[in-house]
Amino acid sequence: MDTFWFVVEAIGTLAFAISGIIEARSRHMDMVGVYAAALLTAFGGGTLRDLMLDGVTPGGRPLFWIEHQWWPVVILGLCMVAWPLFRDPTKATSERKIQLSIDLTDALGLALCAALGASITLRVAPDKGFIAALMAVVSSVFGGVLRDVVCNEIPNVFKRSQLYATAAFLGGALYAGMHAAGIAPHLCFAAAFATTLGLRVAAITFNLRLPV
Amino acid sequence: MDTFWFVVEAIGTLAFAISGIIEARSRHMDMVGVYAAALLTAFGGGTLRDLMLDGVTPGGRPLFWIEHQWWPVVILGLCMVAWPLFRDPTKATSERKIQLSIDLTDALGLALCAALGASITLRVAPDKGFIAALMAVVSSVFGGVLRDVVCNEIPNVFKRSQLYATAAFLGGALYAGMHAAGIAPHLCFAAAFATTLGLRVAAITFNLRLPV
Amino acid sequence: MDTFWFVVEAIGTLAFAISGIIEARSRHMDMVGVYAAALLTAFGGGTLRDLMLDGVTPGGRPLFWIEHQWWPVVILGLCMVAWPLFRDPTKATSERKIQLSIDLTDALGLALCAALGASITLRVAPDKGFIAALMAVVSSVFGGVLRDVVCNEIPNVFKRSQLYATAAFLGGALYAGMHAAGIAPHLCFAAAFATTLGLRVAAITFNLRLPV
Repeated sequence: MDTFWFVVEAIGTLAFAISGIIEARSRHMDMVGVYAAALLTAFGGGTLRDLMLDGVTPGGRPLFWIEHQWWPVVILGLCMVAWPLFRDPTKATSERKIQLSIDLTDALGLALCAALGASITLRVAPDKGFIAALMAVVSSVFGGVLRDVVCNEIPNVFKRSQLYATAAFLGGALYAGMHAAGIAPHLCFAAAFATTLGLRVAAITFNLRLPV
Repeated sequence: MDTFWFVVEAIGTLAFAISGIIEARSRHMDMVGVYAAALLTAFGGGTLRDLMLDGVTPGGRPLFWIEHQWWPVVILGLCMVAWPLFRDPTKATSERKIQLSIDLTDALGLALCAALGASITLRVAPDKGFIAALMAVVSSVFGGVLRDVVCNEIPNVFKRSQLYATAAFLGGALYAGMHAAGIAPHLCFAAAFATTLGLRVAAITFNLRLPV
Repeated sequence: MDTFWFVVEAIGTLAFAISGIIEARSRHMDMVGVYAAALLTAFGGGTLRDLMLDGVTPGGRPLFWIEHQWWPVVILGLCMVAWPLFRDPTKATSERKIQLSIDLTDALGLALCAALGASITLRVAPDKGFIAALMAVVSSVFGGVLRDVVCNEIPNVFKRSQLYATAAFLGGALYAGMHAAGIAPHLCFAAAFATTLGLRVAAITFNLRLPV
């Protein structure tokens, strides 16, 4: 079971890191900028979630990328491998395809980290379903906010009119509801992951928006 | 006495939430944007204060909106009630009146949260008067900074030339001074609240500024 | 030995505070804006580092400027002394000289806080060399990011094309490497400080950049 959560976290972290690398590379940033974008996208959401949950677990605990210090080393390796591969993506392919590849890796990270965020919250505070849904949003959205700050200078997540935080919230809420009904964690995870990913990909494909 | 602090916190939180809802609604944001603006304005300052004070209280403690998870649910209900009421405020009334209603609810939140921030700091660290005055500023100003980031894209609190952080600091400093003189907490609170609210309302009315 | 670290921290903190004061003053900000810029530049990096390291030391500990509350009082005094001295620096001297004085005080703060950040990390987690190098960056760069946010409205650190975070990272990595080789802390510190300061001053002087 621990292996299951490790794999989920690893894929979500790598997906976010890749979305950060592609975005930074297409903005012609240098190696340090690319590494910063990758680190902030990959670890930003989980770090904010853990800081907020800190007092809930008595005694606290280290941030996961500090506890496992090979994580930032792996992201550094990824940046070095990706560096020659994505040499000026704006020349090799169209703006639209670059944006789509960022959106899809970001959607994968979003869905995995939202469900994982709900799961981690319910592990330390089993009765806090609404907080779990909020933490699904915090865990999955904040990394992308930091990526946009670093790459665009102005955060645009709250202007993103296509469903985004909503998809993460509904996935997290579904996880909390199924958890309250006593359903096994990996089933809650699968349903929450599918909901968030499905909604987000549908939002990108069909340009779904909330009414204003 | 506990009821007193609860009521103070509740009114301050709701006042900030309403200021966030009005601002987001007048910017034509969708439901998620409005809820995000309401949550960040209502809880932002208190969360940053509690993160900074964390190591002062041994063992730490959960953030108040995580401990009392009905708080974010109440704010969600408030957003749903306010949604039809504030349907495009820019049509129903003038820009100037909208700005005034944001400024006045914000001033109420500012005065309550500044005095409350000083009070909470002195409860965990009775000898830290200067920190209490700084925490009055952190508690009361940071939520509005986040609201402005979400709604305007560029934070403008530090450009706000009318007295703002100064009003919160002087209220907090007065609380700390009276506390050091052994005066009862609810009297310190009343004086700090009146000072911050009076200065801020006077600043809005008479356009008071610090010299540059 | 404790005196050594205290002096290092004091000079680094004051250098950053002065860079914040000069920048805010040259932007015609009021007293509160200048104090905010000084505080955020001086304490921003160390605060973020300590929040991130919090769970590593069991039980946590107060932020250093909360534990020693005379620190923010000293910065306030510094702002008051600097206020008449830097009365509209844009009239007394050229833009270029102001920028150079900001860059050099900032470089001194960067080099001291980077080496200090690595040292503090290795004291609480002796086996985390890579985290120490990252914390050298966090400790030394984040204060300047906040200064730029307050003074410029848009953070520009990640666009700063001259070597900056790189200098802090290499200094931190050198500290961690020498520490792992069993070399005494004050020698590690001296080497890391000289490396970061030398690289940063060379970057300013010769306009050194990473390839894009």
